[in-house]
Amino acid sequence: MAAGTFTREYDAMRRALVLAATPGVPLHPNPRVGCVLLAPDGTVVGEGCHHGAGTPHAEVEALEAAGERARGATAVVTLEPCGHTGRTGPCAQALIRAGVARVVIAQRDPNPQAAGGMETLQAAGIEADAGLLADEAVELNRAWTFAHRNGRPFVTWKFAATLDGRSAASDGTSRWVSSAPARRDTHLLRGLCDTMLVGTNTVEVDDPQLTVRDDDDRPLPRDVQPLRVVMGERELPAGRRILDDAAPTVHLRTHDAEAALRALYADHDRHHVFLEGGPTLAAAFLKAGLVDEVITYVAPMLLGAGRSAVGKLGIRTIADALRLELVDATVVGEGTEANVRLTMRGPTMRDRPMKEGA
Amino acid sequence: MAAGTFTREYDAMRRALVLAATPGVPLHPNPRVGCVLLAPDGTVVGEGCHHGAGTPHAEVEALEAAGERARGATAVVTLEPCGHTGRTGPCAQALIRAGVARVVIAQRDPNPQAAGGMETLQAAGIEADAGLLADEAVELNRAWTFAHRNGRPFVTWKFAATLDGRSAASDGTSRWVSSAPARRDTHLLRGLCDTMLVGTNTVEVDDPQLTVRDDDDRPLPRDVQPLRVVMGERELPAGRRILDDAAPTVHLRTHDAEAALRALYADHDRHHVFLEGGPTLAAAFLKAGLVDEVITYVAPMLLGAGRSAVGKLGIRTIADALRLELVDATVVGEGTEANVRLTMRGPTMRDRPMKEGA
Repeated sequence: MAAGTFTREYDAMRRALVLAATPGVPLHPNPRVGCVLLAPDGTVVGEGCHHGAGTPHAEVEALEAAGERARGATAVVTLEPCGHTGRTGPCAQALIRAGVARVVIAQRDPNPQAAGGMETLQAAGIEADAGLLADEAVELNRAWTFAHRNGRPFVTWKFAATLDGRSAASDGTSRWVSSAPARRDTHLLRGLCDTMLVGTNTVEVDDPQLTVRDDDDRPLPRDVQPLRVVMGERELPAGRRILDDAAPTVHLRTHDAEAALRALYADHDRHHVFLEGGPTLAAAFLKAGLVDEVITYVAPMLLGAGRSAVGKLGIRTIADALRLELVDATVVGEGTEANVRLTMRGPTMRDRPMKEGA
Repeated sequence: MAAGTFTREYDAMRRALVLAATPGVPLHPNPRVGCVLLAPDGTVVGEGCHHGAGTPHAEVEALEAAGERARGATAVVTLEPCGHTGRTGPCAQALIRAGVARVVIAQRDPNPQAAGGMETLQAAGIEADAGLLADEAVELNRAWTFAHRNGRPFVTWKFAATLDGRSAASDGTSRWVSSAPARRDTHLLRGLCDTMLVGTNTVEVDDPQLTVRDDDDRPLPRDVQPLRVVMGERELPAGRRILDDAAPTVHLRTHDAEAALRALYADHDRHHVFLEGGPTLAAAFLKAGLVDEVITYVAPMLLGAGRSAVGKLGIRTIADALRLELVDATVVGEGTEANVRLTMRGPTMRDRPMKEGA
């Protein structure tokens, strides 16, 4: 392969990544995918992206744009073309039928049900390589990739706290620890996930609606709302807002964080959980090593007493502290409404000995 | 006054502010002052700055540089020239003797013992105006100005805490909550103050040396160390590091935060206290409305239990939370050593009803 060709394929993959991230393309449940078709002379003869579940795949859109010019072309695609039989028109078959000569893939498909596309292409005599800009492609579908690799959704734990780590005052009042701009920011983050998770206790005590709302605090349409999930064995009190028609709701009757996540992946096709429960639920997930990302809104205020943002973790000494890795610190809001949003990579507590009851 | 003159005086004051902040000039105990002498045609005929206690004042340095050219000149000076008698060579007298025609001042002197320079100049027939770039001049000597206006030092409370507001683990261990880069950063901030303050309990439990140390963790020379102050009625245990020769130490036998600060100003000429005590001492200062600035190092870790960064403040409900104003958020350190330094304007709790024992 000539150096010039490589540069063209690299540029085409960058373009395919941009196509995949076309504004408006949903993050769930399908991955975002982009495809560019290059003629042998390097001309772009077709482009496409996947627009979400129920619409054509990126490769199909690009092939339709290219028409006869797809014959002998190189398909540059951000995700391995699906190769599973049993579904109408797997993309690998469409590429074979169109007569493409070569397929360049960024990310191999982590979904065991869809994998095998590369082998299907190669068996048909098509040159197929994978790995070009693979990290960027994985980042594009971070939660989706994580979920398929691990058999459970990616978990983002979000909490707001004062400088002294309180999520509520002594009398239980917690509205508002975070400022109005921080709360609006939270709704943007909720909208990036496909699942909102709390415990029965939060439903009983705080009665949240747990929807994604716009800047005027109105819920977005039901079809773009994440699934609302309540975890715990207790019955939900009637009339709670989480049971309204604004979004679908599921009650998982378990206290086992891992069981809940496995069920959300296997039974509900969920890839990204936004954990907004109280300190006890957060502690259960942390102790089980099931928090992959932590987002904290730090409010520049002090309470000196009140509910801690996180429950007991069984940590007795500073050397055993649960250490996160800071990824980003951003000021949200201005003046007296300024809060600081910290984004951190989650701990891997799974392999660490956890002591109970400290 | 012609517009051209104003521009020249404005430019000269900007230059005088830069001179005042000459690197190496100490922040304490004297204010930083800069002076520029302009000939009637706008030519700069002399410049000077104050290099710290025991050295000539800025005006004197500028007059010496100008020599005979000072006659008829305009003196542009960041701080009102001292006018008090009883000290050798007050600057107002020096300016009169040199024959300057006009004096432009940024900040009036807040120190009652030194004020009156402007009136002395005017009484001698010299035109004198004040207020040009006054805010910038005040900021230049923020703590010094505050102390003279309020009769007590400016108080910066610094603490390090986990995301969940802990300053130590359940077993009391606290080394280290903050990362090595954050601790080095703290030494830079200590070096900007003239006083380090802790309570007897911190001396007993943590035994800090409470010095400003360099990047290799060696104390700076004794003559640039802040005064170490221990507050509290209990006797200090012998052999504590705070009693070593690295810096001077004072033991104030009181539990009254205001009394301690008044004594530090009146008896020790202190203008900027760096409060590094434990949660009880911090709470006492907060409840007394005596914290002017809060600097928090947030470590991206969780403990779930352990000592809170601040003791009880008597706050029961969220509406009464002690609200600070975020001024700056900066990431200090990289990768796993990244902490977030938050700088906040302090609360004004003095005027708020405080409830005890909540």
